[in-house]
Amino acid sequence: MTSKKTINFFYDVVSPYSWLAFEVMCRYRNVWDVEVKLRPAFLGGIMQKSGNKPPGLVPNKFLYMTKDLQRLAQYVDVPLSPPDDPFEAMFQKGSLAAMRFVTAVQEREKDGDRQVEQVSRELWRRIWSENKDITEPASLSEAAKKAGLSDSEIKEVLELCTTQHIKDKLINTTQEALDVGAFGLPMFMYRVNGNAEIFFGSDRFELMAHCIGENPVTARRDKNVRFFHT
Amino acid sequence: MTSKKTINFFYDVVSPYSWLAFEVMCRYRNVWDVEVKLRPAFLGGIMQKSGNKPPGLVPNKFLYMTKDLQRLAQYVDVPLSPPDDPFEAMFQKGSLAAMRFVTAVQEREKDGDRQVEQVSRELWRRIWSENKDITEPASLSEAAKKAGLSDSEIKEVLELCTTQHIKDKLINTTQEALDVGAFGLPMFMYRVNGNAEIFFGSDRFELMAHCIGENPVTARRDKNVRFFHT
Repeated sequence: MTSKKTINFFYDVVSPYSWLAFEVMCRYRNVWDVEVKLRPAFLGGIMQKSGNKPPGLVPNKFLYMTKDLQRLAQYVDVPLSPPDDPFEAMFQKGSLAAMRFVTAVQEREKDGDRQVEQVSRELWRRIWSENKDITEPASLSEAAKKAGLSDSEIKEVLELCTTQHIKDKLINTTQEALDVGAFGLPMFMYRVNGNAEIFFGSDRFELMAHCIGENPVTARRDKNVRFFHT
Repeated sequence: MTSKKTINFFYDVVSPYSWLAFEVMCRYRNVWDVEVKLRPAFLGGIMQKSGNKPPGLVPNKFLYMTKDLQRLAQYVDVPLSPPDDPFEAMFQKGSLAAMRFVTAVQEREKDGDRQVEQVSRELWRRIWSENKDITEPASLSEAAKKAGLSDSEIKEVLELCTTQHIKDKLINTTQEALDVGAFGLPMFMYRVNGNAEIFFGSDRFELMAHCIGENPVTARRDKNVRFFHT
């Protein structure tokens, strides 16, 4: 029996780079010898507590990111399209309700992480592809339904995500990300002799592959990694 | 006769990510069908005029960048090692004299860009590998000597770099970078039908290869790209 390396993937569905990283990671875990642990966190809390500022506040950076996301999305084959008002969607409406919902889905799911993966993807699709809301219970339910949850499962999740236990779980995951060095999302983390190794963003797969002893070229050349595995 | 794509590489020797990008670009231009035009610019001016803030001011980001640079440098085989006091070296001492010097080397060099490439590399080696000064004329001369310039050439360059013409040339290159969208360095830029396509940082080679029709895997697999071509 070998002990696979566990890669923790901290993400928030409000973050478009998290979506790109998520899809690529979901593909790579088929060809790398790793376990991926999905860690829904709250980007707003990470930005505030780390003292970081959203990069889009610098005009040239905002223009660049818009173009960068478009090119990357096309390259990695993710149907990303910015919301009509990214600032309203990201900063005014935000993702607290959505990430509590994802946390509750994960809490309920005992066997694997298929539901949390699919619900996360459907929420990204709403905000970062279809210009739809992710704050209202009806929006969250619709995403969960598309992700394959039954009506009774959705009802349970909606009740669960208002409990203190789920609020605390999201806070704790966010704090854990901060404690190992987060200043934004997405972030990958695995431990080597107890010490956290972190990788920020969607552009460190090649380096991460090198660091964990996987061949980045082999992984990249596998045609399966260019497509959703669902 | 084919018309090769010209990739403008805007950089400042005060920037460690510029060094990594520079070395990788210097390797890739051997295997990609492109012309690389070295464009020495002034990072301080770009940060100020774009309204951007140095990323290292956020504590978790500073710690991450230190680790990220160390891992990337090892991976791409560049002997990078931070100065004892990065803030003093980058922000108090800065790179205005150094980038005027590089600009003057480029102005003098009529045949190719071997001198400007080598002088830039030696300046990076001083600040980002050997914890040495890059602000004093003696420091600049030493770098140029290591890069293979003769004493008379160095004397000429030192005189040239105090002229208004060279000061203006550095300002103009910096302004050109801003005009096409810079908010930091390094930045790659090429034109498609007159429009500027830009790529920021040292981590967009795979995407850039895809966009210019080069095969990122073929380039990466060429063993030559892992070593200095000098």
